[in-house]
Amino acid sequence: MRYDLAIIGAGPAGLSAALNSKVRNKSVIVFGEDSPSLVKTESIKNYLGFEDISGKELNERFKKSLKSYEITFSKEKIQTVYAMGEYFALALKSGEFIEARSTIIACGIDRKKDLINEEKFFAKGISYCATCDAALYKGKEIVVIGYNEESIEEANFVAEIVGKVSFVNMYKKDILLNPKVDLIDDEIAWGFKGKDRAEVLEFKSGREIKADGFFVIKDSSKPQRLVPSIKLIDNHIEVDRNMATNIKGLFAAGDISGKPYQIMKAVGEGQLAGLNAVRYINNIKKSSK
Amino acid sequence: MRYDLAIIGAGPAGLSAALNSKVRNKSVIVFGEDSPSLVKTESIKNYLGFEDISGKELNERFKKSLKSYEITFSKEKIQTVYAMGEYFALALKSGEFIEARSTIIACGIDRKKDLINEEKFFAKGISYCATCDAALYKGKEIVVIGYNEESIEEANFVAEIVGKVSFVNMYKKDILLNPKVDLIDDEIAWGFKGKDRAEVLEFKSGREIKADGFFVIKDSSKPQRLVPSIKLIDNHIEVDRNMATNIKGLFAAGDISGKPYQIMKAVGEGQLAGLNAVRYINNIKKSSK
Repeated sequence: MRYDLAIIGAGPAGLSAALNSKVRNKSVIVFGEDSPSLVKTESIKNYLGFEDISGKELNERFKKSLKSYEITFSKEKIQTVYAMGEYFALALKSGEFIEARSTIIACGIDRKKDLINEEKFFAKGISYCATCDAALYKGKEIVVIGYNEESIEEANFVAEIVGKVSFVNMYKKDILLNPKVDLIDDEIAWGFKGKDRAEVLEFKSGREIKADGFFVIKDSSKPQRLVPSIKLIDNHIEVDRNMATNIKGLFAAGDISGKPYQIMKAVGEGQLAGLNAVRYINNIKKSSK
Repeated sequence: MRYDLAIIGAGPAGLSAALNSKVRNKSVIVFGEDSPSLVKTESIKNYLGFEDISGKELNERFKKSLKSYEITFSKEKIQTVYAMGEYFALALKSGEFIEARSTIIACGIDRKKDLINEEKFFAKGISYCATCDAALYKGKEIVVIGYNEESIEEANFVAEIVGKVSFVNMYKKDILLNPKVDLIDDEIAWGFKGKDRAEVLEFKSGREIKADGFFVIKDSSKPQRLVPSIKLIDNHIEVDRNMATNIKGLFAAGDISGKPYQIMKAVGEGQLAGLNAVRYINNIKKSSK
């Protein structure tokens, strides 16, 4: 199925974009979970319309604003967005593809800091997708550095394929690992060492683990990993006043498109991105008639 | 008295800017009245946080969000804003002057009141926003009086929702209308007739069109009268992604800074303008110490 619009992110910007495009009769799919940074905010005093509201309640209010509209919601993770010219192909982590005429990136920013040399060794011994790359490490030793629940599933899955899996628990919750997975009871001291690729991970106890590959599994990945060839500025997606990116038909809104990380900015940008995506979709529909 | 920040306009953008700068302890004065286009809107379905709210109620909610803060409100009209270097001098119509370190223009746009009775019947059968009000005319007959390219899109959009759309081409260019839209090949002779609301539009040929609603879609604003030397683009104040204008310390937000004329866009831009004005004020205070 090809949707008119795919929105990556279900925080304030994504929900705003969904509402504004749906009001104009577009078919819309929204990928993502409730925004953790919104939901965890105890008190919000600068969202016009309310005096003092918790992030959790405001999020419920946002979702209520959308509930009378037919919008598809999915919790599937997006692996990569491919610009195909007249449409976008979104590769899901499950292996499936979803098509959309236009796409809005509103996935927020990843506040977790990278480990030292993580960026440097990306694709050189460091991967962000176990499902995608596990097959490259058959019979070899790998380390999973897991920041979320999904990382446990990934570690358990990888253990069936590679030689040996060690798991570093950055998730800080009780986890249920495959017995084949070796849980490292230590904290990362530093980051990755290596010459041309990540080879060793160093821990606070002084322990070092050598491995053939490292899987870093965390929530939102950097935009350039999501959309190859996207143009960035100061680690955010570069947009113009219409929230258009350097890729035709691709828009961005909210924290991912720049500071300040604020809710009204995000909903305003979501509205702009939604309305401009609608205009873009109408134009390509017209020209293809 | 010199304020930190003067905000011209008390609509969604101005109130948002006031809230966000006041939260950061700046002294703030806001000039203006309740936004007429907000207050007269019967039903708003695309402001996140609410499902369906009247403009009047949303405006009250907005003012309530500000009520616990010490913000000065003034209904005096601004004649001219003078950039004096380290501060702005605002000449009031009364002849007085107010000084402020930074200024935000959020006065909305002034729609030309060309047709007779257009002002009189505004919100009584006449609307300036098809996106906002089309849903009120489901199954009914409406006339779009289109002065710009956007009006064609609006007419095509409305045609999907209401019973019948007639289009009066004030844009005077070749246009591509949805086949459902009936193009009126005639010139408006006069204006709107009606008892308590706009009912009939009269044409030079003597023809009269009766309709349930009239959408007047046009541009217009004269910000250059308010701020000499302000840089415009397409009749709006040109701003960058930080809502900064070509004049140092002067910001703009909301309808005056560009389309679409939408509430969430306005509050988002107001927040950006407010926060960036605060940053500007802090910097000049620091450097003058």
